[in-house]
Amino acid sequence: LKIKVSIIAGGAGFIGSNLIRYLQSEKRHIVVIDNMCRGSKSFLNSVLSLDRHSISILEGDCADQDFLHGAFILANEFGDLDEVWHLAANSDIPAGIADANVDLKDTFLTTFALLEVMKRFKVSTINFASSSAIYGDFGGVPIYEEIGPLLPISNYGAMKLASEALISAAVESYLERANIFRFPNVVGIPATHGVILDFVRKLIVKPECLMVLGDGSQQKAYLHVSDLIEAMLLVRSARLSKKIELVNIGPIDHGVSVRSIAEWVVERVSPTASIQYGEGNKGWVGDVSKFSYSTKRLQSYGWTPKLDSAGAVNKAINEIALQLGQ
Amino acid sequence: LKIKVSIIAGGAGFIGSNLIRYLQSEKRHIVVIDNMCRGSKSFLNSVLSLDRHSISILEGDCADQDFLHGAFILANEFGDLDEVWHLAANSDIPAGIADANVDLKDTFLTTFALLEVMKRFKVSTINFASSSAIYGDFGGVPIYEEIGPLLPISNYGAMKLASEALISAAVESYLERANIFRFPNVVGIPATHGVILDFVRKLIVKPECLMVLGDGSQQKAYLHVSDLIEAMLLVRSARLSKKIELVNIGPIDHGVSVRSIAEWVVERVSPTASIQYGEGNKGWVGDVSKFSYSTKRLQSYGWTPKLDSAGAVNKAINEIALQLGQ
Repeated sequence: LKIKVSIIAGGAGFIGSNLIRYLQSEKRHIVVIDNMCRGSKSFLNSVLSLDRHSISILEGDCADQDFLHGAFILANEFGDLDEVWHLAANSDIPAGIADANVDLKDTFLTTFALLEVMKRFKVSTINFASSSAIYGDFGGVPIYEEIGPLLPISNYGAMKLASEALISAAVESYLERANIFRFPNVVGIPATHGVILDFVRKLIVKPECLMVLGDGSQQKAYLHVSDLIEAMLLVRSARLSKKIELVNIGPIDHGVSVRSIAEWVVERVSPTASIQYGEGNKGWVGDVSKFSYSTKRLQSYGWTPKLDSAGAVNKAINEIALQLGQ
Repeated sequence: LKIKVSIIAGGAGFIGSNLIRYLQSEKRHIVVIDNMCRGSKSFLNSVLSLDRHSISILEGDCADQDFLHGAFILANEFGDLDEVWHLAANSDIPAGIADANVDLKDTFLTTFALLEVMKRFKVSTINFASSSAIYGDFGGVPIYEEIGPLLPISNYGAMKLASEALISAAVESYLERANIFRFPNVVGIPATHGVILDFVRKLIVKPECLMVLGDGSQQKAYLHVSDLIEAMLLVRSARLSKKIELVNIGPIDHGVSVRSIAEWVVERVSPTASIQYGEGNKGWVGDVSKFSYSTKRLQSYGWTPKLDSAGAVNKAINEIALQLGQ
């Protein structure tokens, strides 16, 4: 019996480096492809130390079909390449607003190129990291998977929705199964971006005062990366009559405010610091101020997260503080 | 007072060449940009003969930002460039399934490039030719603008949805107004593709028998291009409190079957021909077999089409037969 092989595009990033551990426990061979822009080989040290022979790391651009072609040939040599995890993306939303080419290339053209090469190599399953950003701003109305209209307000969200659309067309034409996971804000380590990392970094530079973008009233749901991955693996393992599953992943609660996060980070990193708020309830163009995420479909799989938003954020604050030597 | 200027990307195509006549009557200057792949300068002969000084024609690729930059400079020299009509796309759905690069470049990267250059030149309004293909297959359930999930089944539909998403993000960031028109099947002349043109051409080659792809039961709504353009101009002229309007354009009826179209074309072009049907109710991968299009939003503007599906198809059959010398 041939060993099963998974390709993880963007596998050296935050989610990928956590996912690998779970795939190792399935006795899979894992081929990580990553341009190492936001990901890092150092993020893979702990999984390499567990079993260095189960992982191949290929540094290159996931939007480059020639590079991908080589990576798929290699993956096929290790055994039965039966799935691709597509986690490659520009995760820096403001960067994509400043220069739309970043999201085009890293978030959308990676999807395009991966699908082209998957078609060529007859790889039947894609697990795709989509995002709650595809929904745009519903002003606090609970967002379930079928809600519309889909009017993303950032290029990041637009390119994720564009990627979903392309995957959907590929399912009609040649894919056997697509699991589209619409991520919430995910926290944990190795942190590469996000509000917690920002706050911890700011407090390291200036321990007496934390400046917060916006008035702190933005409320969002957060999930710890360990819960995220367990949810994805559960959906991936389900036998479904449909070929494509769209699922919101998130906690059951309504999230926590930026104000709470600021207070918790201050408490952990620099308890005497004051907090200064800006104006408005949006941190930046493309930031959704109020957000209620329906995870009923995910719960119907029998899943509940181990940590709610507050628990996930507090765990991540501690992990990130340690990551930064605090 | 400066003259108003419109850029029409894909302006030498089927819809564009019809639209120009209406914009001429608004005393606008019109800059047509088109790669002349599916469009043709010959399609513009009649509007040029009406007023050749109101139109500039630039041949080039709408996915090429340098070319667009030059076109926008030129357009600005003619007056106040206040809108872009984005009609450029690969309209050949099977071609896009055979080679996804066609839809990527002609349908999506044109949108990307146009938005980039619109941002640079501070052009505030886009009128976008989207498509009912963004919806995918709802199996005959009436499709209204907010329905979900959006799972297009062709790369064409995927790239149109991707374009909508990008326009939506641009509205959040810099556009003042976006009118997103979700087209039905549009018929009329100059025909460049579509079932009527196919049937007429087939009968010219082989007048004794018409071969139909599929069993002929596919039912679709059709609109005549003249009704389509009047609907777009009505929505475009409306003062709205929102910056983005999504609107299905189509007739009020439930459409006509491929079988009816085949019979009408035979009657007009070659009355003694027999008709042979294939199997299945889909013409090709990516073709939606049953389709019910809700146009309630458009009707709320006080609009009704002059021709229903049957009327539009029969008018177009006659026009296309004449176009092909029949």
